Amino acid sequence: MALSAIESFKVEDHVLVDTEKNTIQEHSETSKWVLSAPDPPTLWHQIVVSVRNTISHYQQWCSSLRGQHRAKVMLSFLTAIFPILDWSHSYTVTKFRNDLLAGLTIASLCIPQSIGYATLAKLDPEYGLYTSVVPPLIYAVMGTSREIAIGPVAVVSLLLSSMIQKLIDPVADPIGYRKFVFTATLFAGIFQAAFGLLRLGFFVDFLSHAAIVGFMAGAAIIIGLQQLKGLFGINHFTNHTDIISVMKSVWESVHHPWNPRNFVLGCSFFIFILLTRLLGKRNRKLYWLPAISPLISVILATVIVFVTRADKSGVNIVKHIKGGLNPISMDQIELNSPHVGALAKIGLVVAIVALTESVSVGRSFASLKGYHLDGNKEMVSLGFMNIIGSFTSCYVATGSFSRTVVNFTAGCETLMSNIVMAVTVIISLLCLTKLLYFTPTAILASIILSALPGLIDINEGYKIWKTDKVDFLACIGAFFGVMFVSVEIGLLVAVAISFMKIIMLSIGPGIETLGKLPGTNMFCDVHQYPMAIKIPGVAIVRIKSSMLCFSNANSITERVTKWITEEEAEGKRSIIQLVIIDASNLVSIDTSGIASLEKLHKNLVSSGKQLAIANPRWKVIYKLKTTNFVKRIGGRVFLTVGEAVESKLDF
Amino acid sequence: MALSAIESFKVEDHVLVDTEKNTIQEHSETSKWVLSAPDPPTLWHQIVVSVRNTISHYQQWCSSLRGQHRAKVMLSFLTAIFPILDWSHSYTVTKFRNDLLAGLTIASLCIPQSIGYATLAKLDPEYGLYTSVVPPLIYAVMGTSREIAIGPVAVVSLLLSSMIQKLIDPVADPIGYRKFVFTATLFAGIFQAAFGLLRLGFFVDFLSHAAIVGFMAGAAIIIGLQQLKGLFGINHFTNHTDIISVMKSVWESVHHPWNPRNFVLGCSFFIFILLTRLLGKRNRKLYWLPAISPLISVILATVIVFVTRADKSGVNIVKHIKGGLNPISMDQIELNSPHVGALAKIGLVVAIVALTESVSVGRSFASLKGYHLDGNKEMVSLGFMNIIGSFTSCYVATGSFSRTVVNFTAGCETLMSNIVMAVTVIISLLCLTKLLYFTPTAILASIILSALPGLIDINEGYKIWKTDKVDFLACIGAFFGVMFVSVEIGLLVAVAISFMKIIMLSIGPGIETLGKLPGTNMFCDVHQYPMAIKIPGVAIVRIKSSMLCFSNANSITERVTKWITEEEAEGKRSIIQLVIIDASNLVSIDTSGIASLEKLHKNLVSSGKQLAIANPRWKVIYKLKTTNFVKRIGGRVFLTVGEAVESKLDF
Repeated sequence: MALSAIESFKVEDHVLVDTEKNTIQEHSETSKWVLSAPDPPTLWHQIVVSVRNTISHYQQWCSSLRGQHRAKVMLSFLTAIFPILDWSHSYTVTKFRNDLLAGLTIASLCIPQSIGYATLAKLDPEYGLYTSVVPPLIYAVMGTSREIAIGPVAVVSLLLSSMIQKLIDPVADPIGYRKFVFTATLFAGIFQAAFGLLRLGFFVDFLSHAAIVGFMAGAAIIIGLQQLKGLFGINHFTNHTDIISVMKSVWESVHHPWNPRNFVLGCSFFIFILLTRLLGKRNRKLYWLPAISPLISVILATVIVFVTRADKSGVNIVKHIKGGLNPISMDQIELNSPHVGALAKIGLVVAIVALTESVSVGRSFASLKGYHLDGNKEMVSLGFMNIIGSFTSCYVATGSFSRTVVNFTAGCETLMSNIVMAVTVIISLLCLTKLLYFTPTAILASIILSALPGLIDINEGYKIWKTDKVDFLACIGAFFGVMFVSVEIGLLVAVAISFMKIIMLSIGPGIETLGKLPGTNMFCDVHQYPMAIKIPGVAIVRIKSSMLCFSNANSITERVTKWITEEEAEGKRSIIQLVIIDASNLVSIDTSGIASLEKLHKNLVSSGKQLAIANPRWKVIYKLKTTNFVKRIGGRVFLTVGEAVESKLDF
Repeated sequence: MALSAIESFKVEDHVLVDTEKNTIQEHSETSKWVLSAPDPPTLWHQIVVSVRNTISHYQQWCSSLRGQHRAKVMLSFLTAIFPILDWSHSYTVTKFRNDLLAGLTIASLCIPQSIGYATLAKLDPEYGLYTSVVPPLIYAVMGTSREIAIGPVAVVSLLLSSMIQKLIDPVADPIGYRKFVFTATLFAGIFQAAFGLLRLGFFVDFLSHAAIVGFMAGAAIIIGLQQLKGLFGINHFTNHTDIISVMKSVWESVHHPWNPRNFVLGCSFFIFILLTRLLGKRNRKLYWLPAISPLISVILATVIVFVTRADKSGVNIVKHIKGGLNPISMDQIELNSPHVGALAKIGLVVAIVALTESVSVGRSFASLKGYHLDGNKEMVSLGFMNIIGSFTSCYVATGSFSRTVVNFTAGCETLMSNIVMAVTVIISLLCLTKLLYFTPTAILASIILSALPGLIDINEGYKIWKTDKVDFLACIGAFFGVMFVSVEIGLLVAVAISFMKIIMLSIGPGIETLGKLPGTNMFCDVHQYPMAIKIPGVAIVRIKSSMLCFSNANSITERVTKWITEEEAEGKRSIIQLVIIDASNLVSIDTSGIASLEKLHKNLVSSGKQLAIANPRWKVIYKLKTTNFVKRIGGRVFLTVGEAVESKLDF
């Protein structure tokens, strides 16, 4: 009853307004253009088009093959799935020489890193090596990037272990934990492939650039802290990843008798790696030195421990690494577990983080070499790689920042370098695992530590601070979230701040006053262009948002009213007779927006002013027409602000 | 290492581009205007201004009083807080006659409704009456609306009980439950007053119009279902509010022996009330009939039960209502309870819903009578009213839809009608509570039922469907959420869908192609204006969003690239040499947005095309300048698209 009664009053009132004003405005030719625009596509139509585009992407591709020889169709089909069939045609011996060199270089970096990252993922060392075999091989035949080096990466390893160990204890039940890891890997692969197949590439864009910078820096510090365990040879270490728990854990272990040998060994090789990197930077010809220095460190340290039998005096060593190729793990995937929902969620988070790292590094190098990387095809390749990985004892692999740079610097030509790397790891798995028995864990810690500075990009952080303060807030929000709470919370904070910014921009947008630029017919913001001249008797406002909707409609119309009152109070020559809303940047308007415009119009009419709309866009003019708002303002809709101003002469 | 390496490659590349192109563009006068705009206010500056505005609102008011006589200052101060001091000066006997009539009319509606709503809030009937005494009196001296009728309302009563009974059982521990109700009321009042004092009126706008329509309709149905308890005389009724639990409860009670007398009594008076409403609508002179018919029903039904002693044969009656004025309840407020956090949350939700109802109904009538309602002052008044209410045994009161309409129709002039109503309720509390002993509960149920149709606004729902499909989704989301899950979930769904829409509009915005309108210098969307002509060799695009940010930057630049390829593939006369981005509707750009523009520029340069920006806004041009993007595109920034097109002749 209540609403309908109010409604009935409103309607009567409007009828009055309509009959009064309807005849004032004679439509000019251009106004007719505005008012007679064809109807914009409906939401339903847009959804249909979007789905049809996704389907037609595949249809087009199919139809382009029709009428051709069956073998050719098959080949074309296979080439689309496996780009290797395409580039292997033009593969030459020179290219192979370059790829061989690059492949061996990244293999020497990859082996110690893989073992270290497996520890970070709370898995046995061999699982890191397994992850450097199958995924690179799959990616080599499916991927479209030429530089990405595939394998386990630090952030994903940490994320996976920190999330799964909330479901199961990796120390008490290592087999169950491994099963969960493979299941999460399968889910991550399925999500990645699904994003690609459904062409949902924009999911990766949910993490803003600023959020990634902050998240990576925070994760690097957390990963560094985790290495204190290996570096100090601490046996009882916390399961939490935040800085406070870790520092407490380190502090407590200092009170116990501890062995400084681990620390000395780790630190000296850490310094060695940093020195080789410095040398590599000074002299471009020595680029291979920083790349192979981790392997040299491993060999040297292992020899030292073996010769001195330092393991007996307290130096922690890797001990047994299971040799042999990847065992099949298909039977270890637990889809009937009660935790399957939680594992799917973990898979989703890990999938997005892994995609972000890989796609962003891939795109950077693609644009350096000047070719286009198809985001959706990339996701499908990474997804399949992880699905098959989960069946062959691998955990989530992705494109690694550090190894991709080394691969590029070493002069890789194609994905063949990944194949070379995988073959090298296979050989190590078959023959060399026994040799790693005496490798001290402190060395692995120092190798991981040496890879971390690349993840902390202070310059970029400063650039973000200079460009956009809210972006910077998302950046440090992610950074502190990761450091002080947990990896997931850090991610969540970053995503939340980023979206909050979008919402804040739409809620509190304010308005701009427009003035005429001298000598032109342009109307621009008087604050941006101080030379712009306000037209006497006319108030021209523009809304600083693309939406006039429930969240800002009331405050915007109130501001317009207030601003007009202020303008008139300032004692201008003439009182305002015409209020023009420049709607050129309004992309959409909702029911609340139209209601508030109606209220504004009514208030203006009651004080003898007129309302006009200039340059409304497609959907806006359509809605203003269907809700009869155009009629209510006496058809005062114009193509440009200039024409609207001229219309003032008519009354 | 990784990122910095990529960065160093990028920088070298850009230096190359810069030196190549820097000299191409001679800046025209208007381009200089664009490039030499003053720096826009920083975020920090904006925050300072916003805080200063809030403070200066009070300062201005204080300084306007400075230098005046102390008594005058005091009076002015008091008038600002208590508008009654203002309007009581010009109060006349004629006005009082009208207010007296309106006050008595709403009192006759208010007494049975208050008792019914108290039952809905799971409180004893007298608490409903208490809530119709103190809050209207406080609002009468502080409020700025002239029509709002204050008191308990159905939706707030339901919301309060459905949320608090999750913390405590109202049947097992009615005293503890009441304490929680008063505490939540205090919090609601504090939040409302704080919103007003801090000028955070936009908080109320978080509930979109569409969401409110859906929520109210769902709540009306839920409230109606709750009345089945009274109407059927069911003793064991579910505590859940969703439709399934309630229908199950009703179904089970039908299997037990039940007393049809309650139902017959309730239904017959329900029909009576509806008939009087019909009469009132037909004949405007009989407007008082539907307003007092609830009171007539109560009196008639009470007499019938008293005479026939039907309560002995199973008709449920109200029984004892405690007489006397509001007892003090300050000692019953539990700020040390472990549930205090939960109660504060309940207070916040209830505060927003109550404000929404009151402010929207107040604004509707204010705009009908042509005066402005200050949203912030309203919130302060409603807040204080509830704070003092919580000290005097009242639960959350707000402006009631149905009684405000009756108040307006009855010809109220000022808030005096609320005072008359409160005095009438006081008299009833002092003298008449004993007479209500035999009032059948079925009558109260039928009175509440008769007030519900006004909350269901099918016309408005249809209008929303016609205007905006996503808005409609928020509307039915709220409706079904309330009906099938719970009141809070319904609200949450509505808010979530509304914000999701904002985010979706920013994520998947797409681009528009612009063409020149014949005979003008305007460039518009070629789909909106089919007569627009594309310029050969030039591609002009506009982004359908006010933000180029992390969530859409990649997809937009990819679309631009794809669209250019398609345009060239279609066999146009000339290949595209210049790509113009019309940035006139871009309000903000973030680091991801700039990064993607840089990538786009690089791709275009590599295929021999140029990129130009037309009409960038304040913050956008500032950021493009500070990040050196303007330099990178050779200063190709123009005031209008037309000038950008003309610049093509230069190269």
